[in-house]
Amino acid sequence: MPITANDTSRKSWLEVLTDSDFPIQNIPFGVFLTKENIVTVGSRIGDFAIDLGALQQLNYFEGIELTDDMFMQDTLNDFISDGQKTWRLVRNRIAEIFDATNPELRDNAEHRDIVIFRMEDVEMQLPVLIGDYTDFYSSREHATNVGKMFRDPENALLPNWLHIPVGYHGRSSSIIPSGIPVHRPMGQTLPNGETMPVFGASRLVDFELETAFITTDCNIMGENIPISEVEDYIFGMVLLNDWSARDIQKWEYVPLGPFLAKNFATSISPWIITMDALEPFKTKGPKQEPTPFPYLQQKGKHSFDINLEVAIAPENAEPTVVSRTNFKYMYWTMSQQLAHHTSNGCRVNSGDMMGSGTISGPTPDSYGSMLEITWGGKNPIKLSDGTERKFINDGDTVIIKGHSQNGQVRIGFGECSSKLLPPFVRQ
Amino acid sequence: MPITANDTSRKSWLEVLTDSDFPIQNIPFGVFLTKENIVTVGSRIGDFAIDLGALQQLNYFEGIELTDDMFMQDTLNDFISDGQKTWRLVRNRIAEIFDATNPELRDNAEHRDIVIFRMEDVEMQLPVLIGDYTDFYSSREHATNVGKMFRDPENALLPNWLHIPVGYHGRSSSIIPSGIPVHRPMGQTLPNGETMPVFGASRLVDFELETAFITTDCNIMGENIPISEVEDYIFGMVLLNDWSARDIQKWEYVPLGPFLAKNFATSISPWIITMDALEPFKTKGPKQEPTPFPYLQQKGKHSFDINLEVAIAPENAEPTVVSRTNFKYMYWTMSQQLAHHTSNGCRVNSGDMMGSGTISGPTPDSYGSMLEITWGGKNPIKLSDGTERKFINDGDTVIIKGHSQNGQVRIGFGECSSKLLPPFVRQ
Repeated sequence: MPITANDTSRKSWLEVLTDSDFPIQNIPFGVFLTKENIVTVGSRIGDFAIDLGALQQLNYFEGIELTDDMFMQDTLNDFISDGQKTWRLVRNRIAEIFDATNPELRDNAEHRDIVIFRMEDVEMQLPVLIGDYTDFYSSREHATNVGKMFRDPENALLPNWLHIPVGYHGRSSSIIPSGIPVHRPMGQTLPNGETMPVFGASRLVDFELETAFITTDCNIMGENIPISEVEDYIFGMVLLNDWSARDIQKWEYVPLGPFLAKNFATSISPWIITMDALEPFKTKGPKQEPTPFPYLQQKGKHSFDINLEVAIAPENAEPTVVSRTNFKYMYWTMSQQLAHHTSNGCRVNSGDMMGSGTISGPTPDSYGSMLEITWGGKNPIKLSDGTERKFINDGDTVIIKGHSQNGQVRIGFGECSSKLLPPFVRQ
Repeated sequence: MPITANDTSRKSWLEVLTDSDFPIQNIPFGVFLTKENIVTVGSRIGDFAIDLGALQQLNYFEGIELTDDMFMQDTLNDFISDGQKTWRLVRNRIAEIFDATNPELRDNAEHRDIVIFRMEDVEMQLPVLIGDYTDFYSSREHATNVGKMFRDPENALLPNWLHIPVGYHGRSSSIIPSGIPVHRPMGQTLPNGETMPVFGASRLVDFELETAFITTDCNIMGENIPISEVEDYIFGMVLLNDWSARDIQKWEYVPLGPFLAKNFATSISPWIITMDALEPFKTKGPKQEPTPFPYLQQKGKHSFDINLEVAIAPENAEPTVVSRTNFKYMYWTMSQQLAHHTSNGCRVNSGDMMGSGTISGPTPDSYGSMLEITWGGKNPIKLSDGTERKFINDGDTVIIKGHSQNGQVRIGFGECSSKLLPPFVRQ
């Protein structure tokens, strides 16, 4: 049995503050760089980073079949490729090592010094080498809001939307971990009422509040995965900010979809929260009407109750929360997204990432983008420092957080934070 | 000076038939598997594959700064990452080793046995690990044809098309080398006149005749590459068949672009023809009106005179050429595509691939897809075995070829060939 938030009584001998996202029930996976310039696969409890490469070298994973350098790597791809059975063995073993009642590492000062780092002493990296990145569009509220603003308010949802978990390919090379700043992009836009475009800095830079899931190797090319099996191929989830330049997007996206409006940057939170840790937070999503095609049909609970919020912190000012929403509002589930993705035989590999699409709830204070919150800039919002925002200003930091709560146990994602810099100018 | 087709008098001591795509002036790069299950980086002259890993081990590249295992790899990414100066040194050295007048390898039977393979004894692999794949849409004729059929015949070209080299992100995981067959994909389609979609095998599977270029590491994220410098970052070109399921595409592509209609398979020719080999075939493309933005402006010749053709070979029948066209018809050049791609700071890495988009000429017999050749199936074409085609049938092999010709010297791509299999059915 994988360890979950239902195991409420378990405590670690490492200090965990009560509002921490990372109690011993979480055990996420990530990659970090130490001050000695060593990159390793790691986990986290409280505000401590755990060097899994060191744990392996010190034989703490004896009895679990792993390649010798499984954790002494700069990505999780090989580990993820080993499949669900291995993930569970390793995660449970980590929980055992750090259990308050287990003296093996707790009472070995020499080993503790090698294995445990304070979070402020490490630098988080991208957790996986992302082969392919797909972004879905699975919030009915978001698709409806966008349709109302840009197309037909009377027929906001396009005819295919209730049949297809609509998605498109994103750019892997521009995915960066939380903490890396982003330049406001240059690009072509068409000023209102004009017929000739202009080239310059985007004026409408926006965030999109999303989550994403990371897959293991799924299929042989040409073969689909039945929906009854897809969940076994999802390793875990991260928070994602799908940075968007609305004015570039509006001019470029017909007929082949968003391109430069999106691929200047995509930020993700660095710790992958496993599906096992999130299992107790499974819940039903919205009713699906019309009934999906058989290849998308599933019974039971396949959505997740995950509280999400976005805050904007202006330069030298406190953050203001501008949206609070929940993953459970999503119309299409991750299982349906993955089943759809392979329904034509498209190959899905270890380390591929699939974004949820903007997660909007039913009310403006739960919308997942400034485009929707300010309704295209018509209704600016006030931040706690007294300034107003229609979109994101240079110097603003956008901070996405997420967590699930089960009585006393909180399983969180940490944060996905990124500052918007002025446009790059060649010297 | 890199060796090119202008060096007409150079001959190799390896046999090269007169209509070969691979004289000593070509020297392409690829990756192949030998019968001993060894994977190596290689080149080709005539019908012989050259093991560059073996040449390096035998010290034939002494004096050129290379990492020890540069060619004993299963991809060209590291070599491409080394940059233009290294590519030229290695390519010229290969031409020198195989020059008819050079005895060093010619007269060393033991070395020849290790280094040289007959093409029929090796199996070509994907030449690069493709990090990100972008597909452009740069043929004015193609964009106009598609616009006429699917949108407005009077305003076939969308307003952004003459300003932007329109492109979108494709799927890297489904790119396969020539010779690997492809299953007809399953998917959702909307039958004509209906409002409810159906799920089943695509009925309108098509090819798209394209080329693609492979890049080296271009930029720091957030920074653009000036158009005056972009050509230094293009390693070479391949032929590409952008397999497309037209009925799936029509139903899914609004508003985020093609997805499952394309990502079931993309076939490429396995030898990368270097830009140095293609240099003598530079030519001017069509006049660009209106004048592009400064970040897309370039003087001189930046298109290429490359003859292209597509043939369909039914099961157990001879191939029939169904289209003959030329790369020079493309409106937007590769330099403009790459400058546009980085104009917002999007990172481009070694081994990224960018497709041209369907290459259509001015007349139906030069169109680059069955969609255009048969005008959406309205005008079926006859193959030499007497059968008719609107789109591609199960059992058909689609064969794309391309070459440039300069007096007596022919620089060719070999072929990009792939057979369409019936849909995959789970047993």
